[in-house]
Amino acid sequence: MSLGAIYEPIQEDMTKVEARLRLVGEVSPTWLAELLAHSLENGGKRLRPALVLLSGGFQDYDLGSLLPMAAAVEVLHTATLVHDDAIDNSLVRRGRPTINKVWGEDKAILLGDYLLAKSEELAADTENLRVIRLFARAIMTIAGGELSQSFGAFKLEQSRQQYLERISAKTASLISLATESGAILSQAPEKLVTALREYGYNLGIAFQIVDDILDFAGDEAEMGKPTGSDLAEGTLTLPAMLLLERYPDDNPVRRLFQNEGDKRENIRLAIELVRDSEVTQECYKVASDYCARACRNLDRLPDNASRRSLRELAEYVVARKK
Amino acid sequence: MSLGAIYEPIQEDMTKVEARLRLVGEVSPTWLAELLAHSLENGGKRLRPALVLLSGGFQDYDLGSLLPMAAAVEVLHTATLVHDDAIDNSLVRRGRPTINKVWGEDKAILLGDYLLAKSEELAADTENLRVIRLFARAIMTIAGGELSQSFGAFKLEQSRQQYLERISAKTASLISLATESGAILSQAPEKLVTALREYGYNLGIAFQIVDDILDFAGDEAEMGKPTGSDLAEGTLTLPAMLLLERYPDDNPVRRLFQNEGDKRENIRLAIELVRDSEVTQECYKVASDYCARACRNLDRLPDNASRRSLRELAEYVVARKK
Repeated sequence: MSLGAIYEPIQEDMTKVEARLRLVGEVSPTWLAELLAHSLENGGKRLRPALVLLSGGFQDYDLGSLLPMAAAVEVLHTATLVHDDAIDNSLVRRGRPTINKVWGEDKAILLGDYLLAKSEELAADTENLRVIRLFARAIMTIAGGELSQSFGAFKLEQSRQQYLERISAKTASLISLATESGAILSQAPEKLVTALREYGYNLGIAFQIVDDILDFAGDEAEMGKPTGSDLAEGTLTLPAMLLLERYPDDNPVRRLFQNEGDKRENIRLAIELVRDSEVTQECYKVASDYCARACRNLDRLPDNASRRSLRELAEYVVARKK
Repeated sequence: MSLGAIYEPIQEDMTKVEARLRLVGEVSPTWLAELLAHSLENGGKRLRPALVLLSGGFQDYDLGSLLPMAAAVEVLHTATLVHDDAIDNSLVRRGRPTINKVWGEDKAILLGDYLLAKSEELAADTENLRVIRLFARAIMTIAGGELSQSFGAFKLEQSRQQYLERISAKTASLISLATESGAILSQAPEKLVTALREYGYNLGIAFQIVDDILDFAGDEAEMGKPTGSDLAEGTLTLPAMLLLERYPDDNPVRRLFQNEGDKRENIRLAIELVRDSEVTQECYKVASDYCARACRNLDRLPDNASRRSLRELAEYVVARKK
C-alpha cells in the first residue's frame, strides 16, 4: 500500500504540515533560508508528522496543537539527521548532497542546533507542558542513544538486548513521542495514551530493524544512499549480529571490527553474506514480530479511519524498500 | 570586587544551583555521567545563573521557578561551549582539556545535543510558557549568530554594525534571556521586565567586547586558554577591526585573512600591535559605554541588594581579567 493511500484520512492536514515546515525556512538572512530549505525539503516520508495527526484521531482532534507538534517532530528528526550526517561524514542522503558535504561540518553542527531549538519552539506552540517535557526528554534519549552507539563502535561483544536498547533510544523514542503526544493533545484517556505510546515504540523498533536490514540488502539507487554505512561506522546492527552468530570464526564483520584486512572488501563480503544467507529473512522475522505487537496495541483503540491507517503503516514499515 | 562579594545576596541559592547542576550529571551509564561532570564542573563564573536569581529579586522572588531556570541557562551555556570547542578544534578551556580533545568531536556534538535538550527540560520545569518560548528562541538566535560568524570567517569587509549584531546574537541574547526570565518568573511588571532585558543586552555586549579584547590582551595562564584564537578562526572582532582602520595598508590581520605569509606570525604580530597601540584602550571605551547603558537601565528598578549586585556585576564584567 502506498503512503499516499495510508495518509488519506489526514491528507488535507498533511498539506498544512508542509506549509508549516516551509514557514520554518522563510527567514532572513538568505544563507539561513537556503540551509533550512535544503534540509527540510528533502523528499522524506513525513512518517512522524503523520503519526502525530493519526494518533490525534481518537478523541478531540485538535488541529491547533497537533499541527505545531507534527511540524516539531519532523524538524527534530531533520536536526538529528543533519548531526548524524556530520558525525558519519555522510555525503548523500535521499539522493541529495548532505549539509556537511555542501557547507562543511561546522555549518552542519550549527544548523542542527538551530533546528533542535526550532523544534522545541514548535513543541512549545502546543502550549501543553506535558508534551513540552516529553519532547525535551525524547531529545535527551536520542542523544544518549547516539552516544551509546558511538561508545560501542567497533566492539564485537554486544548483546541483542543492548542492540534493542540502543535502537529504542535512537529511533523508537521519537516515533513513540509522535504517537503519545498526538494522543495527549487530543485529550485521549490515559489507556489510549499508553496504547499509542506502546504502538509507537514497537513500530519504531520494527522501523529501525528494517533500516538496518536495508543497509545490507537495500538498493542504493532506490534508497538514495550507499549501503554498508553502518559497518563502515562500526555500528553492530541485527544483521551483523546474526552473521557473527552464524559464522563465529572466519567472519568479515569480525575482521572489520578487529581492523584486519581491507576495510572495503570486508564490508562487501559482509553484505554479500547477509544477502546470500537466511540472515535477512531472520531479521525480517524479528521486525514482523514487533509489527505484530504494534498491531495488537492498536486493538485497544476504537476502530476508525485513523486506526486503519496506523495498522497499514505498520505493514508499510516492514514492506518498504527505502 | 570579587564575584563572591557580588553574589552575596544570592549566595545560599547559588549553592542550590550548584546542587541542581550536579544532579544533571547523576545519570547512568557511567560514561554519560563522566562527560556531564567534565563539562559542567568546569570552574566557570556561573554569571548567567546569578543573573537569573538577581533579576528575580524585584518582585515575588520565586525560588521554585528561578532555580530550574538558573540551572537551565548554565546548562545551555555549557552546551554552546561544547559545540564551539568542537567546531574550533579548541583543546583547552579554563585550563582543562575540552570534551573534543578527550573524547573526540563526535562525542562532543552528541553531548552538546544532550545538554541542549537538558537545558530545555530545565526551562520547562519553570512551567512558564512565555519563558519556555523565550528559551527556545534564544537558542535559535545563538545558533544563527554562530552561523553568521562562520559564514563571515576570513572576510575583511565587515561593518561595526555587523559585529554588534553578531555578538548580540551569540552572547547578549543568552545574557538578556537570563535577566528577562528572572524578571518574568518573579511576576515583575512589564516595565521592569523591559529594563532587565535591556540591562542584560547591554551587559552582554560589554561582556563579549571584553572577551574579544582578552583574546588579544589577556594572560593565557590566567584565562586558561590560548590568546589569538579568534584570529585563528578568521573571526573579525572589534580589536581587529580597529587595527585594520588604524593601519589600513600593511596589516597582519589583512595578510592573515588574505592567506598571505605565515599564519602564526601574522597572529603574533596582530596581538603585539593591539597590545602596543591604543586599540585596547579604545575597545575598553566601547565596552564601558555599554556598561554605562546597562547601569542606566538599572535606574528604572527599585534600589535594593539585587540592584546593587547587578551594578557591581556590570563593573566586574569590564574589569575582569578572565
